[in-house]
Amino acid sequence: MKCTRCRAPAEVNLRQHNSGFCRSCFVFYFQRQVERAIEKERMFHQDEAVLVAVSGGKDSLALWDVLVTEGFPTIGFHLALGIGEYSARSRARTEQFAAARGLDLHVHALADEGLAVSDVASATRRPACSACGTIKRHYFDAAALELGCDVIATGHNLDDEAARLLGNVLHWQTEYLARQRPVMQPRHEKFVRKVKPLYLTSELETATYAFMRGIDYVVEECPNAAGATQLVYKDVLDKLENVSPGTKVGFVRDFLARGSSAFAEREGDSAAQSCAGCGMPSFGALCSFCSLRAEVERKLRPREAATRRSESPQ
Amino acid sequence: MKCTRCRAPAEVNLRQHNSGFCRSCFVFYFQRQVERAIEKERMFHQDEAVLVAVSGGKDSLALWDVLVTEGFPTIGFHLALGIGEYSARSRARTEQFAAARGLDLHVHALADEGLAVSDVASATRRPACSACGTIKRHYFDAAALELGCDVIATGHNLDDEAARLLGNVLHWQTEYLARQRPVMQPRHEKFVRKVKPLYLTSELETATYAFMRGIDYVVEECPNAAGATQLVYKDVLDKLENVSPGTKVGFVRDFLARGSSAFAEREGDSAAQSCAGCGMPSFGALCSFCSLRAEVERKLRPREAATRRSESPQ
Repeated sequence: MKCTRCRAPAEVNLRQHNSGFCRSCFVFYFQRQVERAIEKERMFHQDEAVLVAVSGGKDSLALWDVLVTEGFPTIGFHLALGIGEYSARSRARTEQFAAARGLDLHVHALADEGLAVSDVASATRRPACSACGTIKRHYFDAAALELGCDVIATGHNLDDEAARLLGNVLHWQTEYLARQRPVMQPRHEKFVRKVKPLYLTSELETATYAFMRGIDYVVEECPNAAGATQLVYKDVLDKLENVSPGTKVGFVRDFLARGSSAFAEREGDSAAQSCAGCGMPSFGALCSFCSLRAEVERKLRPREAATRRSESPQ
Repeated sequence: MKCTRCRAPAEVNLRQHNSGFCRSCFVFYFQRQVERAIEKERMFHQDEAVLVAVSGGKDSLALWDVLVTEGFPTIGFHLALGIGEYSARSRARTEQFAAARGLDLHVHALADEGLAVSDVASATRRPACSACGTIKRHYFDAAALELGCDVIATGHNLDDEAARLLGNVLHWQTEYLARQRPVMQPRHEKFVRKVKPLYLTSELETATYAFMRGIDYVVEECPNAAGATQLVYKDVLDKLENVSPGTKVGFVRDFLARGSSAFAEREGDSAAQSCAGCGMPSFGALCSFCSLRAEVERKLRPREAATRRSESPQ
């Protein structure tokens, strides 16, 4: 197979797009794809500050690499989750990536405030991935506000989006379907836009890009993901993709073009209050993150929590 | 495991319903399931004549068996498709089933009018399954009209419906999604209601029922189905069902409860004309079946077709 752009021998074969690329043309193609997604979906402009949520995995590091290459002003934000060795390696890879390129990186370690995901999950008996999601949302939002960013970009790729879409469709989660988009507008002035510039590039494409750009990323999956339904969905989608290349990209793209509009977002869903704990927008007196934190405190540090309660004004 | 109904040792384990049944309770359960679907979805009443489209496979014969057992007035209709030995065996099984039970069966052989599916597919170069679908729809509609039936019942089971739904969702075929229901109301006075009483009973359940009732059905799949995407979808759904029992029934049921309404049927879709060929309702001068037949005649019998054209009034 020859490179679709320059006719040199192709190193990468993208069956879903019926095209192939040599190494340098693939890097060009990948960056153009991301750039196009940003432009077409109006994710952000060159003069907006982008908070890139970097985990240390291939997707978020590849995303950050593309954004820096394209000249977008970025700030990296890494949340050290406290999931054993996996988190230690993830943080190290992220810090190495930023240091080697002289990039601005902010790190927040959950363990420092007793909120390591593993501890939270065992204290509250919630599924680790659910607790982790709540925690991440809070810190990403808070970091964007604190650092004055206009938008939060995450590394969700096509495989992530297709798997999430399949899960939402298998259970006809119409509220989630209404909100599954590559650009989510903020529903409060303290929140910022959230975007997924890699939503149409596959896992394999980002891995190939990371490899070609010499990005040293954490290859292992999060240990909590083992057995997750999301992985079963990915597996099943891989099977469909194999039989019919382009299935995933068509599934996500056609959903956004034709299916998505069928599921209207419920009105009155905006967060109207300020959380009594952290001051961020909230649906109730406490936001879901502060509720989770309070639950952890009651379970892990009952004496401290009781003391604090007795000191607080009645 | 014990029978959910009578506590005898269970012979069938239905993981998706978290229940098990002994032989006689399974037969009772299966018949009740079908009865409930008919009642709940208002498919038909005891005093309506039901045309059962019987292929000779497990689903349609099991359906006919249940309907007869429950005392519904039925007429069997078998379309002999002309797909080699497979069709010959299918017809034989159907005729044996009807004869053994003294049931009213009408058989129409496509080969008698030169429309065997294999010949049509090769003459028109259409995919066999597409041609077969067009032909079946025409003859089922025509038979219901001719025999004075109020409703056409087909043996589509849960696996068929889930696979079709998955295909429609993967491509976001919103028009098909709007029309995927267990009861389709007629859109012309010459058409009758079409219903799928087995839409919530799995392939395995109908096979088990057929076995327990001593129904001798054609086990082999239609040879044209080999490699069909539908089978890939079924395979993938089996995988999901295995990991999470109840996936298929939830997918179809939740779609009808929550998803389906999102896809409104287009207005003005009713067939307004009468086909110049067969007199059945049609969207154009010729219905899709008569167009197909005309195409076959031009390809296979060009001389006859030309003669007929020259004889027809200008």
